[in-house]
Amino acid sequence: MSSGASAGHVAAPTGSSSGGEVAANDAPQSIFNFVSVATVQTPFRDRRGTPRQGSVAPLSRGTVVFHPHIVSPAALDNLQQFSHAWVLFVFHENTNARGLEGKKGAGRPTTFRAKISPPRLGGPKVGVFSTRSPHRPNPIGLTMVRILGVQGHHLHVSGLDLVDGTPVLDVKPVVPYDVPDGLAVPEWVLEGDKERRRVTWSRAAQLALHALFERRGARASRFYDNPQALSEAAAQVLAQDIRGVHQGRGSASDGGGCGGAAYECVFDGLRLLFVHADGAVIVQDVVVA
Amino acid sequence: MSSGASAGHVAAPTGSSSGGEVAANDAPQSIFNFVSVATVQTPFRDRRGTPRQGSVAPLSRGTVVFHPHIVSPAALDNLQQFSHAWVLFVFHENTNARGLEGKKGAGRPTTFRAKISPPRLGGPKVGVFSTRSPHRPNPIGLTMVRILGVQGHHLHVSGLDLVDGTPVLDVKPVVPYDVPDGLAVPEWVLEGDKERRRVTWSRAAQLALHALFERRGARASRFYDNPQALSEAAAQVLAQDIRGVHQGRGSASDGGGCGGAAYECVFDGLRLLFVHADGAVIVQDVVVA
Repeated sequence: MSSGASAGHVAAPTGSSSGGEVAANDAPQSIFNFVSVATVQTPFRDRRGTPRQGSVAPLSRGTVVFHPHIVSPAALDNLQQFSHAWVLFVFHENTNARGLEGKKGAGRPTTFRAKISPPRLGGPKVGVFSTRSPHRPNPIGLTMVRILGVQGHHLHVSGLDLVDGTPVLDVKPVVPYDVPDGLAVPEWVLEGDKERRRVTWSRAAQLALHALFERRGARASRFYDNPQALSEAAAQVLAQDIRGVHQGRGSASDGGGCGGAAYECVFDGLRLLFVHADGAVIVQDVVVA
Repeated sequence: MSSGASAGHVAAPTGSSSGGEVAANDAPQSIFNFVSVATVQTPFRDRRGTPRQGSVAPLSRGTVVFHPHIVSPAALDNLQQFSHAWVLFVFHENTNARGLEGKKGAGRPTTFRAKISPPRLGGPKVGVFSTRSPHRPNPIGLTMVRILGVQGHHLHVSGLDLVDGTPVLDVKPVVPYDVPDGLAVPEWVLEGDKERRRVTWSRAAQLALHALFERRGARASRFYDNPQALSEAAAQVLAQDIRGVHQGRGSASDGGGCGGAAYECVFDGLRLLFVHADGAVIVQDVVVA
């Protein structure tokens, strides 16, 4: 649907000190205030180790927890009749704070970069609006989740590729007219999808994980009932080569035959220690984070 | 991708005068400020006559005009390599202003209704988050367009179902992982799609449209080169039965055999006068709006 009176918006000055260059039919920008309606709970504590998209880690579970003082459970009625939902969220951990906090910078041009280097392109720059980069004029993200169920003001989902604690602006059902007719994208968008790696768990890591579940019971995991379910979900995440490019992401040698560097990431409250060897990922140990 | 330092966000008080009912792990809501980066130009002057989704009116053309003082053309580079884009926009004509304007209501619960009656359900209410209704806690909309081309800071598109002048928060390319695997929606979501009507132009209306193009030349239309292209696009819009329910939308009789009521809508600066008769729509005259 479409636009339909003023919703918390304040017309802003053009803010250009040189001024006067705005064409007659170009409306000046406006400032809009939005409030978070929910916060997500996910297994991902840091940006590192968070999938770049949820569809590559469909076993990654999460919960959208609506703020009970502003959203009543009735607002979630019928949502479980849909298989999928869009989550509109705020990239709250962006490192390029925009200077729009409070009224301080209201109306001033933002300082985003017009062109960025997507990780999967490995060098060349493209226009920021041709990417899903978090570093954009308004740090709003869009991600699709599969709906598992609704309980009170909790929306349980899978495939949620967000850092634990991410603020949510909106949830919308996915509907048939969201599916494009004749979708085409440039080749570079597909590049990153090729770098999936095989993930195996060492015997020591398997034993450590089982021991954790035996010792801690339901406290072992917020999202998974048993070691198998957790390790399969974690494997989907590690298959994406979560190392930074400076750490060797995309390199064929994986640090050579001398054992390779050890890496770690936190998944669902557990610290996973792993190495890359022969193009595969080996989880070597698991400890409580 | 996922969350990545604080982007213009201000932690807000919970704002509940009764207070103290927020569970320990429920983060309080935060207020975020966003700025419009563009404004759309479309043939749709009013909410009435604007398609409820762009895919039913693929011939409806539009332009996303980025604000030149905050977005350089380089930010749009590469966007033309994609077939489709998401437009995140503000429902700026909502009739339920949210009281969040300026700091006045910052941190106070919003006054949206938890349940609403979708037009296509014709009575029963559903939870607002299970709808794409504009009347939601944050009046942010999401719509998909087909990319026709980029010229400077103009993004030319088709299938844009927004009122002329709608502010835009973001544009993102549609990528393969936006396509859901095994999409399912409840039956009531599909109901509205059945009510497409045949649209015909009276001889008088055709002559009037041609005369307008001959008299006004390029000023006849912002989006269409000739009368044929404009009338086909307008027909896609009128096929959706844009009358309000109180005006007879969905009624079989169309006001009976006594001629029926006349309606009008503005499309691309032209006032279209039409009637419903025998389940079809007949455009009777066209005048400059």
